[in-house]
Amino acid sequence: MSGTVDTTLAGLEKMGRRAREAARLLAVTPTETKNAALRAMARALRAGAPHILAQNRLDLDDGRQAGLTNALLDRLALNDERVEGMAAGLEEIAEFRDPVGEVLEMWNGEKGIRIGKIRVPLGVVGIIYEARPNVTADSAGLCLKSGNAVILRGGREALRSNEAIAGLLSEAAAGAGAPADAVQLLATTDHESSIALMRLPYLDVLIPRGGKKLKDSVAENARVPYIMTGEGNCHTFVDASADVGMAVDIAVNAKCQRPAVCNAMETLLVHRDIAPRFLPVGLAALAERGVELRCDEESRRLVSLPSVKAASEEDWGTEFYDLILAVKVVGGLDEAIEHITRYGSGHSEAIVTDSYANAQAFLARVDAAAVYVNASTRFTDGGVFGFGAEIGISTQKLHARGPMGVEQLTSVKFIIYGEGQVRG
Amino acid sequence: MSGTVDTTLAGLEKMGRRAREAARLLAVTPTETKNAALRAMARALRAGAPHILAQNRLDLDDGRQAGLTNALLDRLALNDERVEGMAAGLEEIAEFRDPVGEVLEMWNGEKGIRIGKIRVPLGVVGIIYEARPNVTADSAGLCLKSGNAVILRGGREALRSNEAIAGLLSEAAAGAGAPADAVQLLATTDHESSIALMRLPYLDVLIPRGGKKLKDSVAENARVPYIMTGEGNCHTFVDASADVGMAVDIAVNAKCQRPAVCNAMETLLVHRDIAPRFLPVGLAALAERGVELRCDEESRRLVSLPSVKAASEEDWGTEFYDLILAVKVVGGLDEAIEHITRYGSGHSEAIVTDSYANAQAFLARVDAAAVYVNASTRFTDGGVFGFGAEIGISTQKLHARGPMGVEQLTSVKFIIYGEGQVRG
Repeated sequence: MSGTVDTTLAGLEKMGRRAREAARLLAVTPTETKNAALRAMARALRAGAPHILAQNRLDLDDGRQAGLTNALLDRLALNDERVEGMAAGLEEIAEFRDPVGEVLEMWNGEKGIRIGKIRVPLGVVGIIYEARPNVTADSAGLCLKSGNAVILRGGREALRSNEAIAGLLSEAAAGAGAPADAVQLLATTDHESSIALMRLPYLDVLIPRGGKKLKDSVAENARVPYIMTGEGNCHTFVDASADVGMAVDIAVNAKCQRPAVCNAMETLLVHRDIAPRFLPVGLAALAERGVELRCDEESRRLVSLPSVKAASEEDWGTEFYDLILAVKVVGGLDEAIEHITRYGSGHSEAIVTDSYANAQAFLARVDAAAVYVNASTRFTDGGVFGFGAEIGISTQKLHARGPMGVEQLTSVKFIIYGEGQVRG
Repeated sequence: MSGTVDTTLAGLEKMGRRAREAARLLAVTPTETKNAALRAMARALRAGAPHILAQNRLDLDDGRQAGLTNALLDRLALNDERVEGMAAGLEEIAEFRDPVGEVLEMWNGEKGIRIGKIRVPLGVVGIIYEARPNVTADSAGLCLKSGNAVILRGGREALRSNEAIAGLLSEAAAGAGAPADAVQLLATTDHESSIALMRLPYLDVLIPRGGKKLKDSVAENARVPYIMTGEGNCHTFVDASADVGMAVDIAVNAKCQRPAVCNAMETLLVHRDIAPRFLPVGLAALAERGVELRCDEESRRLVSLPSVKAASEEDWGTEFYDLILAVKVVGGLDEAIEHITRYGSGHSEAIVTDSYANAQAFLARVDAAAVYVNASTRFTDGGVFGFGAEIGISTQKLHARGPMGVEQLTSVKFIIYGEGQVRG
């Protein structure tokens, strides 16, 4: 496994050069070889499950001693089912159509040159992520399929699990004919190593997966192009004309179905005209599911429940990633959109309404990756959108926005067939 | 013209906030209003030509005193014809189809939600450019058409010309109903103002137009996403099986037709087997057109012309933007591709060959925005490719590669129509 895992910062430069060479080879690796490698990687995870789980237990022990929350420990924990999930995910990626080499358009240009636009890999992708070890397998698989070499840098909490997974994947991929350094793991997890990766000139793109803190660090330190993913301060606006039952269902789903993910709702905005009818039943349904409610003054006047607290200014800008919800009464569509513009992270935003005009205005004016009418923000997901597995949900506008699958890990180039044409 | 031009660094923050507000309005400005503004801008340039030319003469006087080269003075100089060219360019952009609002796909997702992918503006675009004042008009027009607010920062040499042009454009656009701050010019041109713009948090994307020095400064200083454009160290490889006459024509065109642009050839690579036949006639044709030839030892042995000098290591990595050409004999396709991989800037690369296998291998293995078989690199151009006017030629892989027109100035968002769907 030498070449796969490096524990020194000085080693990062070498990993970068190896990744660049692997990318050069991967760009012209046949689809069948890549798919064979993905299937070999799946087999290796299944065969190596006892090793992965043993290393994961050590990570979990350390995590408990370090006082990680139960939510974090749950994200970190692996079991046979989760390892099988990673393996099945790799096999699913093997079934995807290979995006590389697809000619998107071809046309005749000046003087009869034929110009084609063809999909090519990005090259070398760096991924910085946090606790969940399955990201290691998903990212390695998606990058390999799209012809990219990847340098992975997971969270400290999952270091041993990630080393076990990446080691198995890298060996299996190489054994099946993929370039030796297609999948590499940076095994230093201090802050410096993260910054060094953000500055590594060999990267064609850096994909940080995380919240606001990681985003700020990337904006400050990155010296390579990046795609920010995973920052999700999502809102649901219950308009005056909303069906109350529908609004309750959507709010409960958006907040409670999986609170620790980026497409969960963090703030509920309620039109003043419907607040007296919606809030008592809506907040009761949320409280019943254990949601702590941080309410503005106006909504507190309408509801008295033990789980209602006063919201602070800070709550509007916070991604709780937990069973906590900020609640605010607004005067109408404009105030709702202003609030979202000010505090939202550009991930997923929803309106519940029966007004055609307000639905269309919300879709047009809210600037986010995914904007919903009468549906839960929880749907923002590569699988749901039909892109297969996803490497993250982009909240920036450049290159990729929303769920990113293998296509979003590619670029294009123009190929021109001539017979001696010159210009002018 | 207050609000258009600011001369203090502290003013940049204010310009950023104004641009953000203008972008919010532009995103929902109707196509007809944008087109009316573009036509009004064209009329304003024509009517304001005497003012523009007077200011341009002052810039030229200063430039001559500061010892600018003739090539730079030529890029800076305006006349009636060039002003008319800018105006006509704006009218041409008004004729383009509006990319904003185009629904690229729409499909049924889980539980019958309808998911649409719709084109939206990027938001606020910053553009850093150098001597040519026509970039001011082209950029303003392309950004307005694509619904983006723009902050322009041109070169010091063209400051008065740019102020005159931007002032006229901004006033005309606002008069025709476009948001007041859709087009702004940063009128400080010191190094600090350039860096301040690279760090301005209101920018959705920065588009620097320039060579390697600007690229390095952006990589070091930018705190916003950017698309690097205009760095062009382009090669032509004359393969063993090339038609000598075709190779000479292509080499002469790629070097001489317009040497000071980014798609001009900077290095000529010649297969050893054809060098004795090609080099004497090829280099003579180039020398005849005034090209200074910087040749490796092997090519010097084959040709003796007064304009032949010894190439240095530095020459392989230099964009001359002038009638200077580096020349090197290589052992074959692999060595040519290795040289291009090492020294190229990823802009435009060409092979002249009659070998089907080598043509296909060159197209597949050379990693550049545009890769040519048997045609001049000079064709890499938004107009030639059919994209209309261009805001630059991207040499990076993220978001846009090659010539960038109005479509490349857009992002997407997902709009989802539901009837109460929840997940799980």
